[in-house]
Amino acid sequence: MVESTETIREAAQENVVLIGKKPTMNYVLAVVTQFNNGAKNVKIRARGNAISRAVDVAEISRNRFLTNLAVSDITINSEEISNEDGTKSKVSSIEILMNK
Amino acid sequence: MVESTETIREAAQENVVLIGKKPTMNYVLAVVTQFNNGAKNVKIRARGNAISRAVDVAEISRNRFLTNLAVSDITINSEEISNEDGTKSKVSSIEILMNK
Repeated sequence: MVESTETIREAAQENVVLIGKKPTMNYVLAVVTQFNNGAKNVKIRARGNAISRAVDVAEISRNRFLTNLAVSDITINSEEISNEDGTKSKVSSIEILMNK
Repeated sequence: MVESTETIREAAQENVVLIGKKPTMNYVLAVVTQFNNGAKNVKIRARGNAISRAVDVAEISRNRFLTNLAVSDITINSEEISNEDGTKSKVSSIEILMNK
């Protein structure tokens, strides 16, 4: 019972696409590839300015490539990050869960 | 019956904060003011690059000013906009519904 829960958690971890500063289509390709490799759900994660790109990635994936995709959950949060000079600042984050 | 439904719809319309290019705190102030004036829920809306700012506005409002606020729903969408030269392009949008 414990083992199967862990297996599910591991599988979920693998299906995360972290959005950075690369072109939007790179991340769309990553999402589409994960689903084509059999993933049942993919989590798109971003912080700060990349949040807009994360929404673009979700929208382009489901409108242009895999029209059977649905957004099952969206959560927003604040994360504390350490700057190079030792100070800390807060940055917003988003998680978009997509599934077939 | 019809009348009361319309009243609810009108009230909901009023509580929309549309995120543009102004500083984030301007929009935080708009959200906080709406709640302080008795609104039970406020909808934060943004398109394109302003989406990141919309998430910041929601997070700052509930973490720093009104700690009893909750995010009750987040939806993302694609909208078609007409460019000046007559062509059309798609832009992502977000709606964050906050309530007390």
